Amino acid sequence: MCGTEACLIKCSPVPCVTPETRENGTLIKWDTLINLDHGDPVMYESYWRKMGNRCDITFSGYQSLSYFANAKNLCWFLEPKLEEEIKRLHNVVGNAIVDDHYIVVGTGSSQLIQAALYALSPTDEPEPISVVSAAPFYSSYPEVTDFVRSGLYKWAGDARNFEKDGPYIEFITSPNNPDGVTREPVVNGIQGILIHDLAYYWPQYTAITSPAKYDVMLFTVSKCTGHAGSRIGWALVRDKEVARKMTKFMEISTIGVSKEAQLRAAKILGLISDSCLDPTLENFFEYSQSHMTKRWQRLREVVKSSDLFTLQKYPLQYCHFTRDFYESHPAFAWLMCKGSEDDLEKLLKGYKIQTRSGRKFGSDPKCVRISMLSRDEDFNIFLQRLMSIQGVTNGN
Amino acid sequence: MCGTEACLIKCSPVPCVTPETRENGTLIKWDTLINLDHGDPVMYESYWRKMGNRCDITFSGYQSLSYFANAKNLCWFLEPKLEEEIKRLHNVVGNAIVDDHYIVVGTGSSQLIQAALYALSPTDEPEPISVVSAAPFYSSYPEVTDFVRSGLYKWAGDARNFEKDGPYIEFITSPNNPDGVTREPVVNGIQGILIHDLAYYWPQYTAITSPAKYDVMLFTVSKCTGHAGSRIGWALVRDKEVARKMTKFMEISTIGVSKEAQLRAAKILGLISDSCLDPTLENFFEYSQSHMTKRWQRLREVVKSSDLFTLQKYPLQYCHFTRDFYESHPAFAWLMCKGSEDDLEKLLKGYKIQTRSGRKFGSDPKCVRISMLSRDEDFNIFLQRLMSIQGVTNGN
Repeated sequence: MCGTEACLIKCSPVPCVTPETRENGTLIKWDTLINLDHGDPVMYESYWRKMGNRCDITFSGYQSLSYFANAKNLCWFLEPKLEEEIKRLHNVVGNAIVDDHYIVVGTGSSQLIQAALYALSPTDEPEPISVVSAAPFYSSYPEVTDFVRSGLYKWAGDARNFEKDGPYIEFITSPNNPDGVTREPVVNGIQGILIHDLAYYWPQYTAITSPAKYDVMLFTVSKCTGHAGSRIGWALVRDKEVARKMTKFMEISTIGVSKEAQLRAAKILGLISDSCLDPTLENFFEYSQSHMTKRWQRLREVVKSSDLFTLQKYPLQYCHFTRDFYESHPAFAWLMCKGSEDDLEKLLKGYKIQTRSGRKFGSDPKCVRISMLSRDEDFNIFLQRLMSIQGVTNGN
Repeated sequence: MCGTEACLIKCSPVPCVTPETRENGTLIKWDTLINLDHGDPVMYESYWRKMGNRCDITFSGYQSLSYFANAKNLCWFLEPKLEEEIKRLHNVVGNAIVDDHYIVVGTGSSQLIQAALYALSPTDEPEPISVVSAAPFYSSYPEVTDFVRSGLYKWAGDARNFEKDGPYIEFITSPNNPDGVTREPVVNGIQGILIHDLAYYWPQYTAITSPAKYDVMLFTVSKCTGHAGSRIGWALVRDKEVARKMTKFMEISTIGVSKEAQLRAAKILGLISDSCLDPTLENFFEYSQSHMTKRWQRLREVVKSSDLFTLQKYPLQYCHFTRDFYESHPAFAWLMCKGSEDDLEKLLKGYKIQTRSGRKFGSDPKCVRISMLSRDEDFNIFLQRLMSIQGVTNGN
């Protein structure tokens, strides 16, 4: 493997001709794309490997045949054990009020986004309700809202440009995806219906400044623990009728949510709570905070030495969970191009780094979103390649 | 427990004042509703209990974190092991051609129904495409088609009454839910797009007369093995672009399908195939055929002795899987009222038997659908109560 510094000097626009070595000893060729487009949270694998068999869960052939988990619950397919561990974790972390809220489980938070739109849209209006979010907004909102061309709700773009009278739904993603910024509602109209997407409101990403207590709050296991393959999300819903309609959405669209995924998620959330309370276990959030902090420090160093790039900045805030000040270390880096390059995604793709263009977030193509949750080996190669771009630029 | 015969003579309109005993020794009170509305396949638990730990599957904390199962596959979230076991089972049973079809996995077949509608609907038409199915049709089709008021597709009712020109989508459910009848397309228009829902095309329910080879075929673990709680279904899709669009639907609506559920389903389908090939294992389909046959015999006896009810009849057909003649024993009984009673669901509800009215299937409220897949104890109580209605009627 070429040393990073030496490599930079020798580099052509395709950064490393010499193959780079992955951590597991296999070679990665110079033309292998490093995919940081999706927020695939495989970074967390290292923590779960360290936990050994503490989270093992075994299913027998005769378990969980029924559609029902608890026929008496409003959300009849929600496993009681998952409900219990969701409540426990929010109480341990202090990031959301759960006591006066109903829990609705979903096949990831994507399904809950649709369930919330379904439950909150008026049914007696001739026109679909407008759905907005402030740019840069999560790139899936427009597609999720419009893909089957619903007559109930319709994507209406950037919340900052929304000036129509009447009811509307606003997504508030806080910390925001893609740029990690803490957010408040933007439109502030009298007939606004708010959905708070709190997928990233966990201590590894941001300071927990107070417990969230909104009408509809969405969370997902994917970004909390890294188990994206399980497809488990949950909504905390204050109003009973809204919770009932969201449950109805799940019933019609998928007749509930996989029991295996729910029970495994319960086990995993349980271990995270335990790790915060039992000093003999490595605290999950301390581990992941430390991991994210190191990655961000390294990325900032690379970007700092660059004429081409700049990164979003975050304030230091007091975190009630860690009882210390913490600067956000978001799951995505929001990288901006200072130079004349108009299409940053394209530029990085030329260096075999796949990112997601700002255009997809209703923003500037001079920005890209970059996943910070890849495996260490991919993150290292990403930094090498990013440095090589600067090397080339500096050399020009 | 009151003996069944004795009970009949003594019965008031509420059949048993004396509590009935469940198989596990607990008492079931006379006012406990027996819920046979849903097709909850808990009957199969007994087989899986007999299989002991042969289907056990353990997940460690570090497994399946990624969204991806196989990034190179068209259906990138489909677990290779599940794909393999789906293909193997269809080849063992001979109920569907898989070799020239793509497999798309879904969160139950409900999600695949929507994915198929999304993939098959024209995108350049001003009006949504009409979706039809011949009554009595699966009660969820109208709701699944219309619940978010899609501009792509719209429920247009009973296929037998459909006379509009132009493109349309027809669901062909065979064997049919609710009435168990083998079906062909009904509209037969030149611009018809067909979705074959084959959830019940398994040897316990009907004779396997030939391998199905349609453009879009839907299957579900729920009705094949009984694992409804897992929410795993699959589509066999001939056309690559249709498969790609169905995969896109899954990506937008739930970003894939739970890995735990898929891997467990693979294990379970694998054991079913093994049980058909290995004589030391109890053959799953023989076991479930035998179970269904006995239930149907007992139900037919009760109905036969009644002046009030009649049941759908089925032909004897040669089954290429069992190499024997087999009469269908559907997952649902389609019970019809011969008497003057107009609302059979209401009548049975008065006897604490919850069924689903024919009205919900676009049919006659003198019919109801009754799940035949309950636990033995519930099925026994159902028969007792059904007999008691006759007792009362005969006594009148």
